[in-house]
Amino acid sequence: MINDVKTMDENIQKIWYDEAFDLVKAEINNTLSKSPIVIREYTKHLLASQGKYIRAASVLICAEDKEGMIHPDAVKIAASIEILHLATLVHDDVIDNADLRRGNITLQKKYGKRTAVICGDYLLSVSLRMAASISNRQDFLNLNMPDYVEKVCLGELNQHINNYNVNLTFFNYLKIISGKTAALFEASFFAGALFTGISEAEAKKYRKLGNYIGMIFQLTDDCIDFENTVETANKPVQSDYEQGVITLPLIHALKQLGDFRAKAQGSGVSRSEINEAVSKTGGLDFTRLIVRKYYNKSMKIVDDLDITDNKKDKLIMLLNKASRTA
Amino acid sequence: MINDVKTMDENIQKIWYDEAFDLVKAEINNTLSKSPIVIREYTKHLLASQGKYIRAASVLICAEDKEGMIHPDAVKIAASIEILHLATLVHDDVIDNADLRRGNITLQKKYGKRTAVICGDYLLSVSLRMAASISNRQDFLNLNMPDYVEKVCLGELNQHINNYNVNLTFFNYLKIISGKTAALFEASFFAGALFTGISEAEAKKYRKLGNYIGMIFQLTDDCIDFENTVETANKPVQSDYEQGVITLPLIHALKQLGDFRAKAQGSGVSRSEINEAVSKTGGLDFTRLIVRKYYNKSMKIVDDLDITDNKKDKLIMLLNKASRTA
Repeated sequence: MINDVKTMDENIQKIWYDEAFDLVKAEINNTLSKSPIVIREYTKHLLASQGKYIRAASVLICAEDKEGMIHPDAVKIAASIEILHLATLVHDDVIDNADLRRGNITLQKKYGKRTAVICGDYLLSVSLRMAASISNRQDFLNLNMPDYVEKVCLGELNQHINNYNVNLTFFNYLKIISGKTAALFEASFFAGALFTGISEAEAKKYRKLGNYIGMIFQLTDDCIDFENTVETANKPVQSDYEQGVITLPLIHALKQLGDFRAKAQGSGVSRSEINEAVSKTGGLDFTRLIVRKYYNKSMKIVDDLDITDNKKDKLIMLLNKASRTA
Repeated sequence: MINDVKTMDENIQKIWYDEAFDLVKAEINNTLSKSPIVIREYTKHLLASQGKYIRAASVLICAEDKEGMIHPDAVKIAASIEILHLATLVHDDVIDNADLRRGNITLQKKYGKRTAVICGDYLLSVSLRMAASISNRQDFLNLNMPDYVEKVCLGELNQHINNYNVNLTFFNYLKIISGKTAALFEASFFAGALFTGISEAEAKKYRKLGNYIGMIFQLTDDCIDFENTVETANKPVQSDYEQGVITLPLIHALKQLGDFRAKAQGSGVSRSEINEAVSKTGGLDFTRLIVRKYYNKSMKIVDDLDITDNKKDKLIMLLNKASRTA
């Protein structure tokens, strides 16, 4: 047993999902709006562009026990992972020199790279401190959050190195996003499941499921990025390709079309040529096929978990959110 | 009792200081030279500009028991803190746009800011993972490394915000360096002492001593920076002031000389005017007086600790290293 419910305080007041989710949002808002004065202006700026908390939802759903109740410490872990994610976004925007994030001006654009680097570091430390503030820390020694931070960094670096690499392979791309995106989903699923007192074998299933859902989430994002670019082809957008990031739809096209690849490597190709190549080779359909494969593998794991039907439904809801089919 | 030696494995083979120190160096070299391929070129680059490991020495000396022996896990903690320090330097160089560090070209100059930001994040995660790899982690739950990372970040940010602030006060400056530099010394002393099974009261003394030694280290650095600038006045140097950092010798001068401060705030002052003002007002002597005060307070704590004479001698050696009087 990695973890055992008996070691937890039996007197603790468990809560329902909706209450827990609201508490996560309150915890994050509180952290960003009441940070030390010296950093408050910057962290408050981040409040405006909050995401949908899909990682937090992952933690909470996985933390549900057989009665559908959640240990209150799962709120801390969920908020901690969202803040860690936010830290990586702040550094990503420095790395990508990005001006906008979710429609809002980025921290690095508004306050400069210096401030953004320190703010990212600060959020990272806040995240780890928050994770360490739970009451039964000894049960979470196996979670090893720094391992996941390391995976995210290596994924980021691997992506950065492969910027504009027209020879990037399918498998190397999957490896990149498995670090960059899926690692934090994996951590979320594992951390949540630890609250339910699971066996090693069961923990492995949760980790795998988290990883698959992360892959689905990223590959679906890749498709959406392409679709948005096509829609807004005449506007100045900062799509993946403009930032040098080559994603699966384009990797598929580059592999099929040797001439196109040679031109991309040599004199370069225009945005409309890329869209045409992806369209001609069915790059989006190919990517969605891979998403479907991860989806089916995920469903098999969900079926296999020893959990209530209600929890299964919630996990499927997460799967649908990740693949934007919800 | 924060920590109790009895909870540690009695069969563990403890080691002497010299062996422990060599093992720390080997651990750091191994980490930097055998990191994942995707990052190895960058971490290897950092091998060239290693420091004197004064934080590692702090951990090991504080970890010595009454027989002068050290728990082998102290090696992991010492290496972890040095790597954490290295991570902050890598990000500092991004923030300060620095070209050189200890005479070597910086990571950010050689490979760009993107790579340096990710490498710093990677080293931070490696550091925390290493700290988490010790055998008796439950005894170190009170160490709270992320708290110290947070203090370092806030100190950095506070300094950054006060760049070129000619009205920065003595006390605010002490607050900045207490975070920026002294926090990691405090962590080193506390972490080391935890290996010796100490009381809360005793732990508080170690933390305070670490903080004071960190202050001494930074204030002495400030003086050295000024002395170097005077010596190399005709060469292009990147001293503190050129990077906007106003340190205690200059703060003292700015406070004494109203006209000089007005000019610095307005049209600006030259390097030689600064050196002259610091010299005229005895800024270096004033800073060394503050160092002496911290030194005396440190000596009182060392006297007060319930430790062997040998360990006292080693702590005094550290004090002298920090104040460069060794």
